[in-house]
Amino acid sequence: MSHIRGRFQKDAAEAVVKYTSSLPFDWRMYRQDIRGSIAHANMLAKQNIISTTEAKILVDGLKAIEEEIKNNEFNIKPELEDIHMAIESRLTETVGAVAGKLHTARSRNDQVALDTRMFTRDAIREIQSAIRLLQKALVEQANKNVNVLMPGYTHMQPAQPVLLAHHLLAYFEMLQRDYTRFEDAFKRTDVMPLGSGALAGAAYDLDREFVAKELEFSTVTQNSLDAVSDRDFVIEYLSCASLCMMHISRMAEELVLWSSAEFSFIEIDDSYATPSSIMPQKKNPDVAELGRGKAGRVYGRLMGLLTTMKGLPLSYNRDLQEDKEALFDAHDTLLNSLDVFAGMAITLIFNSNSMSRSLGQGYILATDVADYLVKKALPFREAHAITGRLVNHAISIGKTLEQLTLEDYQQFSLLFGKDIRDISTERSASSKNVIGGTSPSQVAQQLERAGRLIMQ
Amino acid sequence: MSHIRGRFQKDAAEAVVKYTSSLPFDWRMYRQDIRGSIAHANMLAKQNIISTTEAKILVDGLKAIEEEIKNNEFNIKPELEDIHMAIESRLTETVGAVAGKLHTARSRNDQVALDTRMFTRDAIREIQSAIRLLQKALVEQANKNVNVLMPGYTHMQPAQPVLLAHHLLAYFEMLQRDYTRFEDAFKRTDVMPLGSGALAGAAYDLDREFVAKELEFSTVTQNSLDAVSDRDFVIEYLSCASLCMMHISRMAEELVLWSSAEFSFIEIDDSYATPSSIMPQKKNPDVAELGRGKAGRVYGRLMGLLTTMKGLPLSYNRDLQEDKEALFDAHDTLLNSLDVFAGMAITLIFNSNSMSRSLGQGYILATDVADYLVKKALPFREAHAITGRLVNHAISIGKTLEQLTLEDYQQFSLLFGKDIRDISTERSASSKNVIGGTSPSQVAQQLERAGRLIMQ
Amino acid sequence: MSHIRGRFQKDAAEAVVKYTSSLPFDWRMYRQDIRGSIAHANMLAKQNIISTTEAKILVDGLKAIEEEIKNNEFNIKPELEDIHMAIESRLTETVGAVAGKLHTARSRNDQVALDTRMFTRDAIREIQSAIRLLQKALVEQANKNVNVLMPGYTHMQPAQPVLLAHHLLAYFEMLQRDYTRFEDAFKRTDVMPLGSGALAGAAYDLDREFVAKELEFSTVTQNSLDAVSDRDFVIEYLSCASLCMMHISRMAEELVLWSSAEFSFIEIDDSYATPSSIMPQKKNPDVAELGRGKAGRVYGRLMGLLTTMKGLPLSYNRDLQEDKEALFDAHDTLLNSLDVFAGMAITLIFNSNSMSRSLGQGYILATDVADYLVKKALPFREAHAITGRLVNHAISIGKTLEQLTLEDYQQFSLLFGKDIRDISTERSASSKNVIGGTSPSQVAQQLERAGRLIMQ
Amino acid sequence: MSHIRGRFQKDAAEAVVKYTSSLPFDWRMYRQDIRGSIAHANMLAKQNIISTTEAKILVDGLKAIEEEIKNNEFNIKPELEDIHMAIESRLTETVGAVAGKLHTARSRNDQVALDTRMFTRDAIREIQSAIRLLQKALVEQANKNVNVLMPGYTHMQPAQPVLLAHHLLAYFEMLQRDYTRFEDAFKRTDVMPLGSGALAGAAYDLDREFVAKELEFSTVTQNSLDAVSDRDFVIEYLSCASLCMMHISRMAEELVLWSSAEFSFIEIDDSYATPSSIMPQKKNPDVAELGRGKAGRVYGRLMGLLTTMKGLPLSYNRDLQEDKEALFDAHDTLLNSLDVFAGMAITLIFNSNSMSRSLGQGYILATDVADYLVKKALPFREAHAITGRLVNHAISIGKTLEQLTLEDYQQFSLLFGKDIRDISTERSASSKNVIGGTSPSQVAQQLERAGRLIMQ
Repeated sequence: MSHIRGRFQKDAAEAVVKYTSSLPFDWRMYRQDIRGSIAHANMLAKQNIISTTEAKILVDGLKAIEEEIKNNEFNIKPELEDIHMAIESRLTETVGAVAGKLHTARSRNDQVALDTRMFTRDAIREIQSAIRLLQKALVEQANKNVNVLMPGYTHMQPAQPVLLAHHLLAYFEMLQRDYTRFEDAFKRTDVMPLGSGALAGAAYDLDREFVAKELEFSTVTQNSLDAVSDRDFVIEYLSCASLCMMHISRMAEELVLWSSAEFSFIEIDDSYATPSSIMPQKKNPDVAELGRGKAGRVYGRLMGLLTTMKGLPLSYNRDLQEDKEALFDAHDTLLNSLDVFAGMAITLIFNSNSMSRSLGQGYILATDVADYLVKKALPFREAHAITGRLVNHAISIGKTLEQLTLEDYQQFSLLFGKDIRDISTERSASSKNVIGGTSPSQVAQQLERAGRLIMQ
Repeated sequence: MSHIRGRFQKDAAEAVVKYTSSLPFDWRMYRQDIRGSIAHANMLAKQNIISTTEAKILVDGLKAIEEEIKNNEFNIKPELEDIHMAIESRLTETVGAVAGKLHTARSRNDQVALDTRMFTRDAIREIQSAIRLLQKALVEQANKNVNVLMPGYTHMQPAQPVLLAHHLLAYFEMLQRDYTRFEDAFKRTDVMPLGSGALAGAAYDLDREFVAKELEFSTVTQNSLDAVSDRDFVIEYLSCASLCMMHISRMAEELVLWSSAEFSFIEIDDSYATPSSIMPQKKNPDVAELGRGKAGRVYGRLMGLLTTMKGLPLSYNRDLQEDKEALFDAHDTLLNSLDVFAGMAITLIFNSNSMSRSLGQGYILATDVADYLVKKALPFREAHAITGRLVNHAISIGKTLEQLTLEDYQQFSLLFGKDIRDISTERSASSKNVIGGTSPSQVAQQLERAGRLIMQ
Repeated sequence: MSHIRGRFQKDAAEAVVKYTSSLPFDWRMYRQDIRGSIAHANMLAKQNIISTTEAKILVDGLKAIEEEIKNNEFNIKPELEDIHMAIESRLTETVGAVAGKLHTARSRNDQVALDTRMFTRDAIREIQSAIRLLQKALVEQANKNVNVLMPGYTHMQPAQPVLLAHHLLAYFEMLQRDYTRFEDAFKRTDVMPLGSGALAGAAYDLDREFVAKELEFSTVTQNSLDAVSDRDFVIEYLSCASLCMMHISRMAEELVLWSSAEFSFIEIDDSYATPSSIMPQKKNPDVAELGRGKAGRVYGRLMGLLTTMKGLPLSYNRDLQEDKEALFDAHDTLLNSLDVFAGMAITLIFNSNSMSRSLGQGYILATDVADYLVKKALPFREAHAITGRLVNHAISIGKTLEQLTLEDYQQFSLLFGKDIRDISTERSASSKNVIGGTSPSQVAQQLERAGRLIMQ
Repeated sequence: MSHIRGRFQKDAAEAVVKYTSSLPFDWRMYRQDIRGSIAHANMLAKQNIISTTEAKILVDGLKAIEEEIKNNEFNIKPELEDIHMAIESRLTETVGAVAGKLHTARSRNDQVALDTRMFTRDAIREIQSAIRLLQKALVEQANKNVNVLMPGYTHMQPAQPVLLAHHLLAYFEMLQRDYTRFEDAFKRTDVMPLGSGALAGAAYDLDREFVAKELEFSTVTQNSLDAVSDRDFVIEYLSCASLCMMHISRMAEELVLWSSAEFSFIEIDDSYATPSSIMPQKKNPDVAELGRGKAGRVYGRLMGLLTTMKGLPLSYNRDLQEDKEALFDAHDTLLNSLDVFAGMAITLIFNSNSMSRSLGQGYILATDVADYLVKKALPFREAHAITGRLVNHAISIGKTLEQLTLEDYQQFSLLFGKDIRDISTERSASSKNVIGGTSPSQVAQQLERAGRLIMQ
C-alpha cells in the first residue's frame, strides 16, 4: 500500500492504478522534476527549514537518480503513480528517512505545475530553433532561385506573375509570426509556481524568489489557488503549435501539388520521397502528406485540453493530468514536422521550365492590360470590364493575349497603342514595386531582412 | 535500401523513416493482418493464381510469425515502415522467395483498409461488452436501493423528488443508445475492402466474396477508389466514442459532486479513491475526475481525424495513416473508462440520509402544491403564480412548506383544504406514474426492461 | 415582469434578457411547437384533464397563431424568452385565461425536447432528399461520360488508369453511407419525450403513446430525467453532417484542382463560377472553395456542442440551449452545400482531352508491366523491382514506356515478349474486373445499382 | 449581371448568389471599410494617382454612405456579394463614374484583409475593457468580504481554509493573463495589409506607410502573398477568446455549485436569476449555465477556422470568407458573457455562515496537524502518515479533530502537546504567508496590486 494512503482501508484496484498512473508518460519530465527538487532543497536549507547537511544528502541523492534514469537503470513501477513519487520513493531507498523532508512545504500540486512549466519552456525553445532551421532553408532556396518567375495563384487559378523567392518568403513570414507568438507564450510560461502548496500557499517561511532565480524563472505566481490549477500555458503552447502546424499543412499542400505530374514545379529529393508497394513508377510525397495530415492531430490535442478544462471548479482537479500527453504529443509532432520539412525544403529541386510553361497559360497578364488602360486615364472599373471582354474574345478564338494583334486590341478600346506589346511577365512582376510586393528589388530587401531575422 | 525502392537513387533520410513509419503503433493490428493474409493466400490458391502448395507454405509461415509476435520474439525494425512490410519481410526470411507471391493482387492500400476495419470491428465488440458491464452495475445498484428517494435536480437546484433508481437508470438509457449507435457503426465497418488494389481494383480473377466469408464480413466494398480512401468507419467509431465519453463525463461529474462534503450522497470505495500527498484527510475521487477529463481527449481525436480528412482528393493519401493512433488511443481510453467506472459504480455506497436531508431543503414540493390547485380547476399558470408567492412568503419567514399552517396557505388561495397536508415526497414521486416517470411502479417496469436488455 | 417570476422581487436585467433569450433563433421551430401543443391539448381532452371545448379553443387559437407567424404578423418580443412562452403569451391574448391550461402536465423542459426532436426529424429528411439530388447528378454525369478514361491518383501522383465514371461513383458511395447514417440517426431521434415533465414525469394520467401517434413518432422515451437532458440526437445529427461535409470538402478539393490551368479536367459552368474584382481573366471556383471551407464550420458546431455537454450533471441545465444555433447553422450549411454542389455537378463540362494528356504522363502503366511479369510466373515482389528499374531507366533517357523498344524491355527481363506492346490504358482499366473495380463492365453494374438506390 | 462579370456568359445561379454572398454578415464592417477607403483615396491623391478633386468627391461620397448605413437608410442587396461591392456600387450611384477610380491599386483581397484587421483591433479593445469591468467586480467583492473564510477545495473536497478574497482573486489572475494575451494578439493584428493588391502587390507608386499612419497601424505587412491569405490574427483572437471563455466557464461552474441548496455559499441577485415555468420555488442560475455552455461555442469557432485554413495553398482562396462569422459570433459571445458576468458578480451576496459550516466539515485542518509535527522535527512523510491514521480514527468514532482530546492525539504521537489546540481555520490561513498565499496580509497586498492593474 502506498505510504500516503494512511487513512485508507484498502489499496487501489489494479485497474485504478493503471487508469490513474501518469508515470508511463510523465517520466519524460524527470530532468525538470529533479532540477526543481534540488532548488527546493537548497531553499529549505537556506531558510533553515532543513539543515545544510540534509540538503546536501538530498541533492546528491537526486543527482544520482538522474544518472540512473539517463542510463536506463531506473525501474519504473506504475504503482508509484507519477514521476514525483517514483523519484521520492527511490530517494527513500538510497538516502533513507531524510528523503521524507524533501516534501516539506511542497505538494504534488505545485510540484507538477513547476515541472510542466519547465518542460514547456524547454519545448518552446526547441520549437523556436526548429522554426529558424526551416526559415533558413526557405531563405537559402529563395536566394538560390532568386530570378525564377512563377504564376501566383488565387483560387488555384493563375492570377499574376510572382517571383518564386517571393512565394517562399510568404512562408518565412508565417513562421516569423509563429516565432514571436511562441515568444509571447514563453513569457506567460516563465512564472514560478512552487510555494503554492496544495492550494493555499505554504505554512513555512519560504523564499520563492530564490527558487525562481535558481531555476531561471523571471517571476513567481501571485495566487496559489490559480497557480495549482492553471494550465493556460499548456493550452497557449497548443494554440501556437496548431497555428504553426496549419502553416506547415499549407506548405505541405503546395509541395504535394507542385510534385504532381500536372504541375511538375518541384522534384522532391529521393531521400524525402516514398515508393509504392504495388506501383513501381511511383515517387510519393508522403512526408508532405503526413505533415498536412498531422495538423489535425495537433488541433485535436488543443481541442481536447480546452474541453478538459471547461467548467472545472477551483482548484486542482485530477482532470488536469490530461495536460501532459497532449503537450508531449503535440510537441513531438510539431518538432519532428519542422525538422523533416527543413530537410525536405533544403533538398528540393525547382523546375523553372514547368513554372514558365504554366505562366504562359491562363491570361495571367490581363490585370496588366487593365492597369495599362488605367494609366491612360480610364477608371479602373471600366478598364476591368474592357479587359474582361478582350480575354473572352481571345478564349473564343483560341489565342493567348500575346498572339492578339494591335487591331484586335483596338476593337475593344482605342486607348491601346503599340506599347501594349511591352507587357511581359517580367515587367508585370517588376511593376509591383511596393513594400511587400513581388518586384525583384522588393524581394531582395525582404531577403536581406529575413537573413537578419534568422541570425537572432 | 527497402526492396520496394527500385526506382530510387537514395535511401530515405533517417528522420524520414522515423517520421513516416507506422510500425511503432500499427503492430497492434498484427493479428488482423495475419488473418487477412491467410484468407488472401487461400483465395489466391482457390483461384489458381498461386498453387495450393505455395498457399500452404505462406499460411504456415504466417501462423509461425503470429506465434513469434505473441511471444515477443519478433524484432520490430522501424525501417520496415509498417506491420504489413514487417510481416512480409519476416516471411521472406522464413519461407524464401515464395513470400513475394503473397502480395499478388494486393496493395498496402487495400490491406491496411482491411486490417483497420477488422480492428475496428473487434474494438466495437469490446466496447459493447464493456457498456453492458457498466449497465449491469447501474441496474444492480438501482435494484439494491430501489426505495431510496433523492432530490431530482434541474439547474443544480432541487426540483422534484425522484427515486435514486430512476436517476441511475437515466445513465442506463444513455448507455443503451451508445450500444445501438455502436451497432449501427458496426454495419458500416463490416464491409470487406480487399481486392480494391492500390485504387482501381485488381487485374486478377479474384473471389472477393470468398475472402469476405473467410473473414466473417457481411459484404464487400463496391468502389475501389472509395474503398482505399474511406476512413468513415474510424470517424464513426470516434463519434460514437465521443458521445459515450460525454455520458461518462456526466456520470463522473455527479460522482464528484455527490462525494463532496456538502452533498455526501455517496462514499466511493477506498479501492477507487486516491489520497493526497500533503493533506492526510483527503479521499479524492480521482478516477471520476479522470473519466470526466478524458472526454476531451476522445473529442480531440475525433476532431483531429475529421480535420485530417478535410479536403483530401481521391484516392489514398498518406495523411490517412493518422487514423490509427487516433483510433487506438480513443479505444483504450473509452474501454478503460467503462471498465473502471463499472468497478467504481458497483462498489459505491449510497447515503440515503444525506439524500433525505437534501430533500428537506429547497421547497421541492412546490410543483405538487401547484398541481394540487390545478386539480381544483385552476389554470396551471395561475396555480404556478400563486405557489410562487407562497414560496416567497415561506422563505421570507424562514419556514418550509411543511411548517406552514393551513391558514398560511389559505391567505394565498381559498382552494387550499386540509388535504394539502397529504403532500409528501413519497406521494410526489408516486404521482409521476407515466411511462418513463419516477413512480415506483414505473421504475420497477424499467428495471425489468433493463434486465432484459443487458441479457442480450 | 414575466408572469412566471412569481417568487422574484425584481425583473431580469436587460443584458440578462438579451443573453438568455432564445427567441431570436428558436422561432424557427414554431411549426413544431404548435403542432406539439395541439397534440398535447387533444390528449389532455381525451384524458379528461381539460374539457373538449377547452381543447378546441386552444387548438383553434394555436392554428390562428401559426397563420400569424407564417404571414409575418407576429410580434416577436425578446423578453418573452423563447418560442414556447411567446406563443403561450399570444394565446393568452387571443383566447384568454384558458390558455393557462395548455401548460398543464407539461414543462418547457419536455416541450423543447419535443420541438427539437421534431425539427431534427424534418432536417434529416431534407438532407436525405438533398443527398439524393447530388447522387443523381453524379450518376447522370457518369452515364454521360461512361467511356472517358482518366488517371487515377494516389498521393496526387498518377497511379493507374480509371474510368471517370468510376471516380464519380466513389463520391456516390460516400453519399450513400451518409444517407444510411442519417437514417440510423433518425431512429434515435424519432422518440417522443413529452410527458417527461420538468424532470420526473407528470403527475397526471397522460396518454403519451397517443401523443406519439399524433406526431408520428415510433416510440416514447423511457426515462424522464434522461429525456429532458438528452441532446444525443442533435450531436448525432452534427456528427453525420460533419462526415457529409467532409465528403463535400473532398469533392470540392477535386473540383478546384481539376479546374486549375494545370489540370484543366473540367470547366465549371459560368453560373457556378465567380469573377475577380481586379483580374479580368479570372474564373474562380468559389462555390467549391466555400464548400471546402464550410466543413470546418460544421465540425466546429459538433465540437462546440460536445464540449457544452461535457460534464453536465442531470437533468436539464440551461447550457442545453446552445444546441439550437449549432443545429440550425449546421443544417443550413449542409443543405445549401448539397444543393449548390448538385447544381454545379450537373452543369460541369468534362475535358477528356486533358485527362488523356495526363494519362500519357507518369508511367501510369508500370503496374501493368509488373503484373505482366507476374503472369509469367515471377513473384510479385521481383516483378515490382524489375519494373522499378525499367521506369528509372526510361526516365533517365527521357522516354515513356510506350517509346521503349522490346530490346529495352528485355535488358531488364527476358520474360518480356512482343505482347508487352498490348498493354494500354484501356486494357489496364478493363483488366480490373473485380467487384468494385474500374473495368467498364463492373462500372456499368455499379451504375445500375446506383440507379436503383436513388429511386428509393 | 454584376459589372465585374465581363468575361462571363451567364449570371450566377440564384442559389450561388445566396451561398457566396457575405453581405448578410460583413455589413458589420462598414465603418472599417469606409475608413479604409477614405485613407486609400487620400493616399491616391497624395501620390497623384487620382486628382485631389476626385479624392474629395470620393471621400465625401463615402462619408455620406456611412451616414446612410448608420441611419438604416441603406438598401442591402445580397447580389452585391459583399460590403465592399455594396458600398462601391452605391458610390457609383451617388458620385458617378469617378467611383470606379477608388478601386485603383486595390483588390478586394487586400481590402477585406484590411477591414478584418481593423475590426479585430476594435474587438480586442472592447474585450479588454470588458475584462477590466469583470476584474473590478471581483476586486470590489473581495474588498467587501475581505475577512470571510471558506474551504479551499481540491478534487471538490475541502482541503484547506482560504480567504474568499483569495479565491476571487484567482479569477482576477486568469483574467489578467487573458488581458495580456489579447495585448500580444493585438500586436500581430496591428499590421496594415493594403497595397498587397490581389496577391502580388500593386503596380502603382503607393505610399503604404501613409495609409498605415492614417489608420493608426504600427507597421505594414512585408509579403503580399502572405498578407492576402493570412488569417492568423483571427485565429489568435479566437484562441484568446477560447481561453477567456474557459475561465468564464470555470467561474460559472462555481456560481452554479455555490448557489445549490447543498452549498448555499451565494445568493444570485434576482435580476440575474431565472424562474421555472413549472416549478414555482425555483431560482435558477441560468446566466451562469449559459456562460458555462457557451465556452463550447467559442471553442467550436476556433476549431472551425483552424480546420478551414488547414491545407490551403497560397494565396487568397474563398474559403477564407468563413473567418468573419466565426469572428463575429465568438466576439459577441465573449463580450456579452464578460458583461453579464460582471453584472452578476457585483450583485452577488455571499453567505459566510454556509462557508463557515462547510469549513467545519471534512477535517480541513489535517495538514496543519501534519505541519505541527514537522515543526517538531518529524519528516513530512511520517507526519503525513500519522495524521492520516488520526483522521481515520476520528472518522470511525464520529468526531471532528476539534472534538478529540489531547490523549486521543497522543495515542498517535507523543510529539503532540497542548498547543495542538491552537490550530484553527484562522491560524491555518494566516500561516500561509508566502507570496501568493492565502494569509490576510498576502491577500491585502494582492488586492492592492489588483487595484493598480485595473487602473491601467
